[in-house]
Amino acid sequence: MANEGSYVAIGLKVWTAQIERADKLFGRLSSEEVQREIAPGRNRLLYLWGHLTAIHDAMLPLLGMGERLHPEFDVAFVSNPDKSQAAIPSHEQVRQAWNVVNAELSKGFEKMSWSDWAQRHSAVSEEDFAKDTSRNRFAILLNRTNHLSYHLGQAVLGLN
Amino acid sequence: MANEGSYVAIGLKVWTAQIERADKLFGRLSSEEVQREIAPGRNRLLYLWGHLTAIHDAMLPLLGMGERLHPEFDVAFVSNPDKSQAAIPSHEQVRQAWNVVNAELSKGFEKMSWSDWAQRHSAVSEEDFAKDTSRNRFAILLNRTNHLSYHLGQAVLGLN
Repeated sequence: MANEGSYVAIGLKVWTAQIERADKLFGRLSSEEVQREIAPGRNRLLYLWGHLTAIHDAMLPLLGMGERLHPEFDVAFVSNPDKSQAAIPSHEQVRQAWNVVNAELSKGFEKMSWSDWAQRHSAVSEEDFAKDTSRNRFAILLNRTNHLSYHLGQAVLGLN
Repeated sequence: MANEGSYVAIGLKVWTAQIERADKLFGRLSSEEVQREIAPGRNRLLYLWGHLTAIHDAMLPLLGMGERLHPEFDVAFVSNPDKSQAAIPSHEQVRQAWNVVNAELSKGFEKMSWSDWAQRHSAVSEEDFAKDTSRNRFAILLNRTNHLSYHLGQAVLGLN
Protein backbone atom coordinates (compact mmCIF):
# COMPACT_ATOMS: atom_id res chain seq x y z
CA MET A 1 0.00 0.00 0.00
CA ALA A 2 2.62 2.51 0.99
CA ASN A 3 5.78 2.68 -1.03
CA GLU A 4 8.69 5.07 -1.40
CA GLY A 5 6.99 6.73 -4.32
CA SER A 6 3.95 7.77 -2.35
CA TYR A 7 6.07 9.71 0.15
CA VAL A 8 8.02 11.46 -2.59
CA ALA A 9 4.78 12.25 -4.41
CA ILE A 10 3.43 13.98 -1.29
CA GLY A 11 6.64 15.96 -0.87
CA LEU A 12 6.36 17.11 -4.48
CA LYS A 13 2.69 17.97 -4.06
CA VAL A 14 3.44 20.22 -1.08
CA TRP A 15 6.31 21.86 -2.99
CA THR A 16 4.05 22.53 -5.97
CA ALA A 17 1.32 23.98 -3.78
CA GLN A 18 3.75 26.49 -2.26
CA ILE A 19 5.17 27.41 -5.67
CA GLU A 20 1.64 28.10 -6.89
CA ARG A 21 0.97 30.31 -3.87
CA ALA A 22 4.16 32.22 -4.61
CA ASP A 23 3.29 32.52 -8.32
CA LYS A 24 -0.04 34.07 -7.39
CA LEU A 25 1.34 36.34 -4.71
CA PHE A 26 4.35 37.74 -6.59
CA GLY A 27 3.07 37.32 -10.14
CA ARG A 28 0.27 39.85 -9.83
CA LEU A 29 2.40 42.67 -8.40
CA SER A 30 3.05 45.85 -10.37
CA SER A 31 6.55 47.30 -10.64
CA GLU A 32 5.54 49.79 -8.00
CA GLU A 33 4.15 47.17 -5.66
CA VAL A 34 7.29 45.00 -5.69
CA GLN A 35 9.12 47.96 -4.17
CA ARG A 36 6.92 47.77 -1.05
CA GLU A 37 8.49 46.72 2.22
CA ILE A 38 6.87 43.82 4.09
CA ALA A 39 7.00 46.06 7.19
CA PRO A 40 8.56 49.48 7.82
CA GLY A 41 12.32 49.23 7.31
CA ARG A 42 12.16 45.53 6.34
CA ASN A 43 12.87 43.71 3.09
CA ARG A 44 11.07 44.73 -0.06
CA LEU A 45 8.88 42.22 -1.89
CA LEU A 46 11.30 42.27 -4.84
CA TYR A 47 14.14 41.29 -2.53
CA LEU A 48 12.19 38.31 -1.16
CA TRP A 49 11.23 37.23 -4.66
CA GLY A 50 14.83 37.48 -5.87
CA HIS A 51 16.05 35.70 -2.75
CA LEU A 52 13.69 32.77 -3.33
CA THR A 53 14.73 32.66 -6.98
CA ALA A 54 18.42 32.49 -6.04
CA ILE A 55 17.88 29.73 -3.48
CA HIS A 56 15.80 27.71 -5.95
CA ASP A 57 18.42 28.27 -8.65
CA ALA A 58 21.02 26.77 -6.33
CA MET A 59 18.87 23.63 -6.05
CA LEU A 60 19.75 22.73 -9.65
CA PRO A 61 23.36 21.70 -8.92
CA LEU A 62 22.40 20.42 -5.44
CA LEU A 63 19.99 17.94 -7.02
CA GLY A 64 22.31 17.04 -9.88
CA MET A 65 20.30 18.88 -12.55
CA GLY A 66 23.16 20.93 -13.94
CA GLU A 67 24.72 24.33 -13.48
CA ARG A 68 23.00 27.34 -11.94
CA LEU A 69 21.20 29.64 -14.35
CA HIS A 70 21.51 32.84 -12.27
CA PRO A 71 24.51 32.73 -9.94
CA GLU A 72 24.65 36.54 -10.24
CA PHE A 73 21.48 36.73 -8.12
CA ASP A 74 23.44 35.85 -4.98
CA VAL A 75 25.18 39.22 -4.62
CA ALA A 76 21.87 41.04 -4.88
CA PHE A 77 19.62 38.70 -2.93
CA VAL A 78 21.56 36.30 -0.71
CA SER A 79 24.96 37.45 0.46
CA ASN A 80 23.91 41.07 1.00
CA PRO A 81 20.90 42.65 2.71
CA ASP A 82 18.23 44.54 0.83
CA LYS A 83 18.99 48.16 -0.14
CA SER A 84 22.75 47.67 0.20
CA GLN A 85 23.55 47.26 -3.51
CA ALA A 86 23.65 50.08 -6.06
CA ALA A 87 22.11 47.90 -8.75
CA ILE A 88 20.06 44.73 -8.51
CA PRO A 89 18.15 42.73 -11.15
CA SER A 90 14.98 44.47 -12.30
CA HIS A 91 11.42 43.40 -11.61
CA GLU A 92 11.21 41.90 -15.08
CA GLN A 93 14.51 40.04 -14.70
CA VAL A 94 13.41 38.56 -11.37
CA ARG A 95 10.05 37.52 -12.79
CA GLN A 96 11.68 35.78 -15.75
CA ALA A 97 14.35 34.10 -13.66
CA TRP A 98 11.74 32.88 -11.13
CA ASN A 99 9.67 31.31 -13.89
CA VAL A 100 12.59 29.75 -15.75
CA VAL A 101 14.27 28.34 -12.62
CA ASN A 102 11.11 26.75 -11.26
CA ALA A 103 10.20 25.32 -14.67
CA GLU A 104 13.69 23.81 -14.87
CA LEU A 105 13.29 22.27 -11.42
CA SER A 106 9.89 20.92 -12.36
CA LYS A 107 11.32 19.30 -15.51
CA GLY A 108 14.13 17.81 -13.45
CA PHE A 109 11.71 16.42 -10.85
CA GLU A 110 9.78 14.65 -13.58
CA LYS A 111 12.90 12.87 -14.75
CA MET A 112 13.87 11.68 -11.27
CA SER A 113 12.93 8.18 -10.20
CA TRP A 114 11.71 7.65 -6.65
CA SER A 115 15.03 6.17 -5.65
CA ASP A 116 16.94 9.17 -7.01
CA TRP A 117 15.51 11.17 -4.12
CA ALA A 118 17.34 8.99 -1.64
CA GLN A 119 20.71 9.79 -3.27
CA ARG A 120 23.06 12.22 -1.60
CA HIS A 121 22.84 15.86 -2.61
CA SER A 122 25.92 17.44 -4.10
CA ALA A 123 26.88 19.54 -1.05
CA VAL A 124 27.57 16.47 1.08
CA SER A 125 30.61 14.26 0.52
CA GLU A 126 30.28 10.52 -0.06
CA GLU A 127 32.02 9.99 3.24
CA ASP A 128 29.65 12.18 5.22
CA PHE A 129 26.66 10.73 3.41
CA ALA A 130 27.70 7.23 4.44
CA LYS A 131 27.47 8.39 8.04
CA ASP A 132 24.10 10.10 7.62
CA THR A 133 21.97 9.02 4.68
CA SER A 134 19.26 11.51 5.58
CA ARG A 135 21.36 14.19 3.88
CA ASN A 136 19.72 13.33 0.60
CA ARG A 137 17.77 15.05 -2.16
CA PHE A 138 14.43 14.49 -0.48
CA ALA A 139 15.69 16.41 2.55
CA ILE A 140 16.62 19.31 0.23
CA LEU A 141 13.11 19.28 -1.21
CA LEU A 142 11.45 19.44 2.22
CA ASN A 143 13.83 22.07 3.56
CA ARG A 144 13.47 24.33 0.55
CA THR A 145 9.68 24.00 0.66
CA ASN A 146 9.77 25.22 4.26
CA HIS A 147 12.13 28.03 3.30
CA LEU A 148 9.59 29.11 0.70
CA SER A 149 6.73 28.97 3.23
CA TYR A 150 8.77 31.01 5.70
CA HIS A 151 9.20 33.89 3.26
CA LEU A 152 5.66 33.60 1.90
CA GLY A 153 4.44 34.28 5.44
CA GLN A 154 6.47 37.50 5.29
CA ALA A 155 5.60 38.48 1.73
CA VAL A 156 1.88 38.36 2.43
CA LEU A 157 2.37 41.20 4.93
CA GLY A 158 3.53 43.48 2.12
CA LEU A 159 0.34 43.07 0.11
CA ASN A 160 -1.90 45.60 1.77
CA MET B 1 18.98 1.59 0.54
CA ALA B 2 15.90 3.79 0.47
CA ASN B 3 12.80 2.60 2.25
CA GLU B 4 9.57 4.13 3.44
CA GLY B 5 11.04 4.72 6.85
CA SER B 6 13.83 6.92 5.57
CA TYR B 7 11.35 9.36 4.00
CA VAL B 8 9.23 9.50 7.14
CA ALA B 9 12.37 10.01 9.23
CA ILE B 10 13.32 13.03 7.13
CA GLY B 11 9.81 14.47 7.43
CA LEU B 12 10.03 14.09 11.21
CA LYS B 13 13.49 15.63 11.29
CA VAL B 14 12.28 18.74 9.46
CA TRP B 15 9.25 18.99 11.77
CA THR B 16 11.48 18.76 14.84
CA ALA B 17 13.87 21.39 13.51
CA GLN B 18 11.01 23.86 13.05
CA ILE B 19 9.57 23.08 16.50
CA GLU B 20 12.98 23.79 18.00
CA ARG B 21 13.18 27.10 16.15
CA ALA B 22 9.74 28.01 17.49
CA ASP B 23 10.69 26.93 21.02
CA LYS B 24 13.69 29.24 20.92
CA LEU B 25 11.86 32.14 19.33
CA PHE B 26 8.73 32.14 21.51
CA GLY B 27 10.18 30.55 24.63
CA ARG B 28 12.52 33.40 25.47
CA LEU B 29 9.92 36.18 25.23
CA SER B 30 8.84 38.13 28.29
CA SER B 31 5.14 38.75 28.98
CA GLU B 32 5.66 42.23 27.63
CA GLU B 33 7.38 41.05 24.47
CA VAL B 34 4.63 38.56 23.52
CA GLN B 35 2.29 41.55 23.25
CA ARG B 36 4.38 42.99 20.42
CA GLU B 37 2.89 43.12 16.94
CA ILE B 38 4.91 41.53 14.13
CA ALA B 39 4.30 44.77 12.18
CA PRO B 40 2.18 47.85 12.93
CA GLY B 41 -1.47 46.80 13.17
CA ARG B 42 -0.66 43.12 12.56
CA ASN B 43 -0.96 40.03 14.77
CA ARG B 44 0.76 39.98 18.12
CA LEU B 45 3.37 37.34 18.87
CA LEU B 46 1.08 35.81 21.50
CA TYR B 47 -1.64 35.39 18.89
CA LEU B 48 0.72 33.57 16.51
CA TRP B 49 1.96 31.34 19.31
CA GLY B 50 -1.59 30.52 20.40
CA HIS B 51 -2.60 29.95 16.78
CA LEU B 52 0.22 27.47 16.20
CA THR B 53 -0.67 25.72 19.48
CA ALA B 54 -4.31 25.36 18.41
CA ILE B 55 -3.41 23.98 14.98
CA HIS B 56 -0.94 21.51 16.50
CA ASP B 57 -3.53 20.50 19.11
CA ALA B 58 -5.92 19.66 16.27
CA MET B 59 -3.30 17.29 14.83
CA LEU B 60 -3.91 14.89 17.74
CA PRO B 61 -7.33 13.66 16.52
CA LEU B 62 -6.29 14.08 12.86
CA LEU B 63 -3.46 11.60 13.38
CA GLY B 64 -5.49 9.24 15.55
CA MET B 65 -3.73 10.17 18.79
CA GLY B 66 -6.84 10.98 20.79
CA GLU B 67 -8.94 13.99 21.69
CA ARG B 68 -7.79 17.58 21.56
CA LEU B 69 -6.31 18.98 24.75
CA HIS B 70 -7.20 22.64 24.13
CA PRO B 71 -10.23 23.03 21.84
CA GLU B 72 -10.97 26.31 23.64
CA PHE B 73 -7.94 27.84 21.90
CA ASP B 74 -9.85 28.00 18.60
CA VAL B 75 -12.12 30.90 19.57
CA ALA B 76 -9.14 32.97 20.67
CA PHE B 77 -6.60 32.01 18.01
CA VAL B 78 -8.20 30.43 14.94
CA SER B 79 -11.79 31.39 14.20
CA ASN B 80 -11.35 35.03 15.20
CA PRO B 81 -8.69 37.62 14.39
CA ASP B 82 -6.31 39.01 16.97
CA LYS B 83 -7.60 41.75 19.28
CA SER B 84 -11.26 40.85 18.64
CA GLN B 85 -11.85 38.84 21.84
CA ALA B 86 -12.32 40.33 25.31
CA ALA B 87 -10.35 37.53 26.95
CA ILE B 88 -7.81 35.12 25.52
CA PRO B 89 -5.52 32.56 27.20
CA SER B 90 -2.65 34.18 29.06
CA HIS B 91 1.03 34.08 28.14
CA GLU B 92 1.59 31.35 30.73
CA GLN B 93 -1.38 29.31 29.50
CA VAL B 94 -0.17 29.48 25.90
CA ARG B 95 3.36 28.52 26.90
CA GLN B 96 2.15 25.51 28.85
CA ALA B 97 -0.30 24.39 26.16
CA TRP B 98 2.38 24.74 23.46
CA ASN B 99 4.78 22.55 25.43
CA VAL B 100 2.21 19.92 26.39
CA VAL B 101 0.68 19.64 22.92
CA ASN B 102 4.01 19.27 21.13
CA ALA B 103 5.25 16.77 23.71
CA GLU B 104 2.06 14.75 23.16
CA LEU B 105 2.60 14.82 19.40
CA SER B 106 6.20 13.79 19.83
CA LYS B 107 5.15 10.82 22.00
CA GLY B 108 2.55 9.85 19.41
CA PHE B 109 5.09 10.04 16.57
CA GLU B 110 7.38 7.65 18.42
CA LYS B 111 4.61 5.07 18.65
CA MET B 112 3.73 5.24 14.96
CA SER B 113 5.19 2.67 12.60
CA TRP B 114 6.35 3.82 9.17
CA SER B 115 3.27 2.35 7.54
CA ASP B 116 0.96 4.22 9.94
CA TRP B 117 1.96 7.41 8.15
CA ALA B 118 0.42 6.15 4.94
CA GLN B 119 -2.99 5.67 6.62
CA ARG B 120 -5.75 8.16 6.00
CA HIS B 121 -6.06 11.06 8.41
CA SER B 122 -9.33 11.38 10.30
CA ALA B 123 -10.71 14.35 8.33
CA VAL B 124 -10.96 12.33 5.11
CA SER B 125 -13.59 9.62 4.63
CA GLU B 126 -12.66 6.07 3.66
CA GLU B 127 -14.38 6.64 0.35
CA ASP B 128 -12.45 9.81 -0.48
CA PHE B 129 -9.22 8.26 0.70
CA ALA B 130 -9.73 5.34 -1.70
CA LYS B 131 -9.80 7.90 -4.53
CA ASP B 132 -6.75 9.81 -3.31
CA THR B 133 -4.36 7.98 -0.99
CA SER B 134 -2.12 11.03 -0.72
CA ARG B 135 -4.57 12.42 1.86
CA ASN B 136 -2.70 10.59 4.56
CA ARG B 137 -0.98 11.34 7.84
CA PHE B 138 2.37 12.04 6.21
CA ALA B 139 0.70 14.80 4.17
CA ILE B 140 -0.60 16.32 7.42
CA LEU B 141 2.91 16.28 8.85
CA LEU B 142 4.42 18.06 5.84
CA ASN B 143 1.58 20.59 5.59
CA ARG B 144 1.68 21.48 9.27
CA THR B 145 5.46 21.84 9.15
CA ASN B 146 5.06 24.37 6.36
CA HIS B 147 2.30 26.13 8.28
CA LEU B 148 4.72 26.46 11.19
CA SER B 149 7.48 27.83 8.92
CA TYR B 150 5.05 30.34 7.40
CA HIS B 151 4.24 31.85 10.79
CA LEU B 152 7.84 31.63 12.03
CA GLY B 153 8.79 33.88 9.12
CA GLN B 154 6.28 36.38 10.48
CA ALA B 155 7.11 35.96 14.16
CA VAL B 156 10.77 36.74 13.60
CA LEU B 157 9.74 40.23 12.44
CA GLY B 158 8.33 40.95 15.90
CA LEU B 159 11.60 40.30 17.67
CA ASN B 160 13.35 43.62 17.23
